[in-house]
Amino acid sequence: VNRTLSRYGTTVFTVMSALAVRHGAVNLGQGFPDEEGPEAIRRLAADAVYEGPNQYPPMRGLAELREAVATHNRRFYGLDINPETEVLVTSGATEALACGMLGLIEPGDEVVLFEPLYDSYLPMIERGGGIARIVRLEPPDWRLPEAALAAVFSRRTKLLVLNSPLNPAGKVFGHEELASIARLLLAYDAFALCDEVYEHLVFDGASHVPLLSLPGMRERCVRIGSAGKTFSATGWKVGYASGPAPLIDALARAHQFLTFTTPPNLQRAVAAGLCQNDGYFGGLAAQQQAKRDRLAAGLAAAGFGVLPSTGTYFLVADYRRLGFDETDAAFCQRLIEEAGVAAIPLSAFYREAPPVGFVRFCFCKRDAVLDEAVARLHRRF
Amino acid sequence: VNRTLSRYGTTVFTVMSALAVRHGAVNLGQGFPDEEGPEAIRRLAADAVYEGPNQYPPMRGLAELREAVATHNRRFYGLDINPETEVLVTSGATEALACGMLGLIEPGDEVVLFEPLYDSYLPMIERGGGIARIVRLEPPDWRLPEAALAAVFSRRTKLLVLNSPLNPAGKVFGHEELASIARLLLAYDAFALCDEVYEHLVFDGASHVPLLSLPGMRERCVRIGSAGKTFSATGWKVGYASGPAPLIDALARAHQFLTFTTPPNLQRAVAAGLCQNDGYFGGLAAQQQAKRDRLAAGLAAAGFGVLPSTGTYFLVADYRRLGFDETDAAFCQRLIEEAGVAAIPLSAFYREAPPVGFVRFCFCKRDAVLDEAVARLHRRF
Ligand SMILES: CSCCC(=O)C(=O)O
Ligand SMILES: CSCCC(=O)C(=O)O
Repeated sequence: VNRTLSRYGTTVFTVMSALAVRHGAVNLGQGFPDEEGPEAIRRLAADAVYEGPNQYPPMRGLAELREAVATHNRRFYGLDINPETEVLVTSGATEALACGMLGLIEPGDEVVLFEPLYDSYLPMIERGGGIARIVRLEPPDWRLPEAALAAVFSRRTKLLVLNSPLNPAGKVFGHEELASIARLLLAYDAFALCDEVYEHLVFDGASHVPLLSLPGMRERCVRIGSAGKTFSATGWKVGYASGPAPLIDALARAHQFLTFTTPPNLQRAVAAGLCQNDGYFGGLAAQQQAKRDRLAAGLAAAGFGVLPSTGTYFLVADYRRLGFDETDAAFCQRLIEEAGVAAIPLSAFYREAPPVGFVRFCFCKRDAVLDEAVARLHRRF
Repeated sequence: VNRTLSRYGTTVFTVMSALAVRHGAVNLGQGFPDEEGPEAIRRLAADAVYEGPNQYPPMRGLAELREAVATHNRRFYGLDINPETEVLVTSGATEALACGMLGLIEPGDEVVLFEPLYDSYLPMIERGGGIARIVRLEPPDWRLPEAALAAVFSRRTKLLVLNSPLNPAGKVFGHEELASIARLLLAYDAFALCDEVYEHLVFDGASHVPLLSLPGMRERCVRIGSAGKTFSATGWKVGYASGPAPLIDALARAHQFLTFTTPPNLQRAVAAGLCQNDGYFGGLAAQQQAKRDRLAAGLAAAGFGVLPSTGTYFLVADYRRLGFDETDAAFCQRLIEEAGVAAIPLSAFYREAPPVGFVRFCFCKRDAVLDEAVARLHRRF
């Protein structure tokens, strides 16, 4: 069997969710809401499943969804995207990322990545023949190390992968940081794959800026969004990539042989979802910000150090304040077994020598679930 | 961008469907039904979309669908499959195939394939670093050339890909042929990826035999099924792979980073679909056999030579009888422009030097649509 993929084992999110079930733990590990998304959108999707369309949609996505993605890009970011040639609908953002990695990378190409990194990036880049060049961001401030970033670029750099808002850090990259990245992409004639699945989960009045919207970036970036995250339906697996036609073509060359298409009934509902009024998007962020605050307060009261989170479903907590100096994997095991709460060790997001002392908690859960988790932590610590 | 994938351009099915729309042609090209599948199954899926589950299901698939796949394997083929460790649910059979190719192949491995071949096989094998060793079957009899098959096996053979029932040939591999393949797999210690998406579309009392069911094959074959084909809902993109745990593990290592999961609401309905009574499966085959006969009679009356089809959605027709000796691509262009009917050239299924004189027609369409296509062909030829 293929050694590159088998070396990585099973994704940490699956492993921790299975452990949570086994121990009857409150699952604040894997990132998914435990409430349903907008009722009208589910109604539309249900009708489309019953009445159709149920056959293959166009390979690049239903026209109505590609239009909606273009409109969404204009409305939120002032971007002018051609729905015919510059949008690709995929079976989740994960597939869009895989399409980018398999469709853009030639064996031997170098790919710049930031740690902490989402766990599909490295295996797919390596399976595609790419060589990862990793730049490390560290808690508690997650500062972008400009010199280290400049140092990993070379003539061999083909691609940079940027996740902003950044899972698990809760960091939203600022304009200055994005401008530094853009300068390097231009100087080295490289592309970027921008994982922006948490684009609408941004808090405290911060704003998400797509790298694609910076000067000179229009021709070199593909930005990826997720209906699962934006409509609280992580199981729908509808993603969308926007970018210049030649790059979208390259992604489509992979997509047509990875999944070929994505369910048209769900696509139809997502198209309507993207056209909802501003109240929907603002409401989603406000709701999740309140959950972040609720969990942050509870963790702090239980004795954790709580790092700020300006976006995503996640916050990072420092457990050394509780008097433990074991590894984060050991602490997560203790959390599940002794407190009955599942979290994700920060080390899962670093290839080697992870920062010690931090775990990730997911806050996109019902208030009662967050409260129960906090009560369990109080009881144990 | 990646040259291996970009060299293959856009899949012929997308190109021909777009041409059909442009010319207002009756589309007998791409294989998808134009009627809805079972109403009860659509109702179940619609309810599951409205009420949930809408969040990430387990990475390997909903337990109820993995159970149903195991039960289906026992009921139809007498196979004993463990739903916990020997089943993987994927976002369509295309994704299951991609998982097999990326998850099993190491760069430099040789992969045995049969022509005519489905258009995702070669690009994904090559993108995975595999080297294709192609054995050629030819119309009109599509005989398996045993000596040629034995000749392509070597110490470097890792994998064989078998599509039975075979698109576009309409051939169902017989027990003797499968036994020859099995002997070679054993002799060379190779695996097989069995694309059996048309398993329930078998006609004239023929029976589909999974290679996995032959002696010695239980530990070396992964068989792939498709809810899209079995429930006439090609857009649902729910596939399932069954096989020995180590091979299913290898596919899951790829699946977790290609799409991660597949919509749980659709999975729930597919689980129920697989548990329908024999009447459903027999009815599907009978319905499609009648359509095959209807189209075959019409094509023959219009002057085509019609090759027998014992399975799939497709039949192959010989247009030289009509007095044309141009390439099949040229004839398909003529068919669309002059007759207003879209078909697929057989050459799309051969890497080089395709047999000349044959095109593929899809018959899984409403009778009125088949009749209209035949009337148009009569009018022109
Ligand atoms: C793909 S499962 C994990 C979901 C997620 O994005 C996360 O928990 O980080
Ligand atoms: C994936 S689109 C093509 C559908 C099909 O299997 C065919 O037409 O051969």
